[in-house]
Amino acid sequence: MSGDRDSARIASVGVDLGGTNIRSAVFDDGMQILGRSERQTRAQEDADDVIRRMATCVREALEQASVAAGEVAGVGVGAAGLTDWRTGVVVLASNLGWRNVPVRERLEQELDGLRVEVDKDTNVAALAEARLGAGREFEHFLYVTAGTGIGGGLILDGALYRGATGGAGDVGHIVVDPEGPRCGCGDYGCVEVFSSGAGMVDRARETLAKGGDDGESSALDPESLTTEDIFEAARRGDAVAIRIVERAGAALGLALADYVNINNPEAIVLGGGVTRAGETYLGPVERELKRRALAALGEIVELVPPGLGDDVGVTGAALLLRESASQEEGGA
Amino acid sequence: MSGDRDSARIASVGVDLGGTNIRSAVFDDGMQILGRSERQTRAQEDADDVIRRMATCVREALEQASVAAGEVAGVGVGAAGLTDWRTGVVVLASNLGWRNVPVRERLEQELDGLRVEVDKDTNVAALAEARLGAGREFEHFLYVTAGTGIGGGLILDGALYRGATGGAGDVGHIVVDPEGPRCGCGDYGCVEVFSSGAGMVDRARETLAKGGDDGESSALDPESLTTEDIFEAARRGDAVAIRIVERAGAALGLALADYVNINNPEAIVLGGGVTRAGETYLGPVERELKRRALAALGEIVELVPPGLGDDVGVTGAALLLRESASQEEGGA
Repeated sequence: MSGDRDSARIASVGVDLGGTNIRSAVFDDGMQILGRSERQTRAQEDADDVIRRMATCVREALEQASVAAGEVAGVGVGAAGLTDWRTGVVVLASNLGWRNVPVRERLEQELDGLRVEVDKDTNVAALAEARLGAGREFEHFLYVTAGTGIGGGLILDGALYRGATGGAGDVGHIVVDPEGPRCGCGDYGCVEVFSSGAGMVDRARETLAKGGDDGESSALDPESLTTEDIFEAARRGDAVAIRIVERAGAALGLALADYVNINNPEAIVLGGGVTRAGETYLGPVERELKRRALAALGEIVELVPPGLGDDVGVTGAALLLRESASQEEGGA
Repeated sequence: MSGDRDSARIASVGVDLGGTNIRSAVFDDGMQILGRSERQTRAQEDADDVIRRMATCVREALEQASVAAGEVAGVGVGAAGLTDWRTGVVVLASNLGWRNVPVRERLEQELDGLRVEVDKDTNVAALAEARLGAGREFEHFLYVTAGTGIGGGLILDGALYRGATGGAGDVGHIVVDPEGPRCGCGDYGCVEVFSSGAGMVDRARETLAKGGDDGESSALDPESLTTEDIFEAARRGDAVAIRIVERAGAALGLALADYVNINNPEAIVLGGGVTRAGETYLGPVERELKRRALAALGEIVELVPPGLGDDVGVTGAALLLRESASQEEGGA
């Protein structure tokens, strides 16, 4: 892999920094994966320990790919939290328990000055879908991931749009019921409290605690309840579970209709663990989206699944590095 | 005004096409107004008649400005309705009763081939605020006008963002109460049904028809009710009126919080007839906006009044022409 001058510094590394693990992958200039590594993270862990482990994870992936440090353009990081991409500071990451951690600066130190770019995970995922996934045919789309929580990233005019301070795309906190349950963000009735995996479990427990809607019985066990249990019960016809899932889908559809009326996208790329339930969840999402959005804007919107799988995070992180590097070279 | 070669074709005309009148103004290259004209429109009027009147209005303003047709770069039009700026077709304008009217093509014919650009009125107003008004210090802001209805325009990265088909910024149809009253758009509980002038009058009549909340008496007369009556009664302490205005402001604040969580702006420029009521209305808007938005995104947002007055429409329309002309000359 040492190669000639022309092929030098063309590999890039993508790092996906989540609440439970760090994944890294080395990409060649055709975005093929040459090597990988994965390590765990723990909640409330010291940020410096995590950053050193990220550096180790990067070095391991480079070693597996047989790529020397001199052949690497840099490292892109997608972090699970609000990130200021201009400074590379992770401003707030609840899952990691982080506030204002200068990831770019620290990781560059750990990697002996290798270039590092950092952005939030949903932004790099949106970028990956835009360049290599379901978003390739669209100039204007919203990427949404509905899993434990709900997050998003915006592609406008073919480029990532981050807003004034990197917070654009926080669609999980669109309010769908002003008097609804309290959300982790402090507000009430955010779509996340109804339509995320954790939200559905909370809503199911709430319903079960008051003996079901209209006193209906349910096979759901509030003690050991997972999102999959709810979907499974809904498929078997459990009325309480069906209502939880219907409401989850409809609430997300309403939030997406608000998005459509605000930003007039061509498509919404909707993925994440919760969407694996299929039509049970996606049916109500699409129905409510089409019913609620302004007709002229709703009728052109396509609701599509993501094109990339579990590698979306590392892929997007590597693309983040590549695109910011080429912008800098392009210059003004 | 005939001038030398260098100063030729530097005047531009802005036209504000609303539901009740057409206003036109001629601007010099320093955006000073050289001449004006104004004519009326009527609902459901034949589109061709209106377009001919627009052409007359343009010619009258040019005459008043002593500017010859050869000295004009073109005409920008801000139209009260969903507009495809790429084709200059007004897709849907409820106040005018228009569907798919090719304003650019027809007006160019009427004006002997003079260049015409068309966009929706809230977009050109956002552009005017961005270049010459309250938005000059911001790269990312939402322009909102709350009058009879509620509309908006987005400035992202310093430029007008129109979405996929020109519909971006339709913030009047953000849903704030999913079970709320029906909106003109067909959906239920849009912010416009609570927070616009017409919405407040409707909500007041509804409350009065059922004898006030909790049977309270009110000085409001449902027969001849205007938005100004409601504000006036609220200032005098009328409990029904106060609740209508509070709810109107809070509903708009909630919608703006959704916007903040989606697009992370630096500012919201909020104008329109309804905001002339001042703190009675704006107080609840700001309180709810700050309370509902994600803390990190809400705390940086400034809620500011517009910098331009009644000429915002003609000014923005002229800027639309100038900016699209310079883009074309600039090329790729």
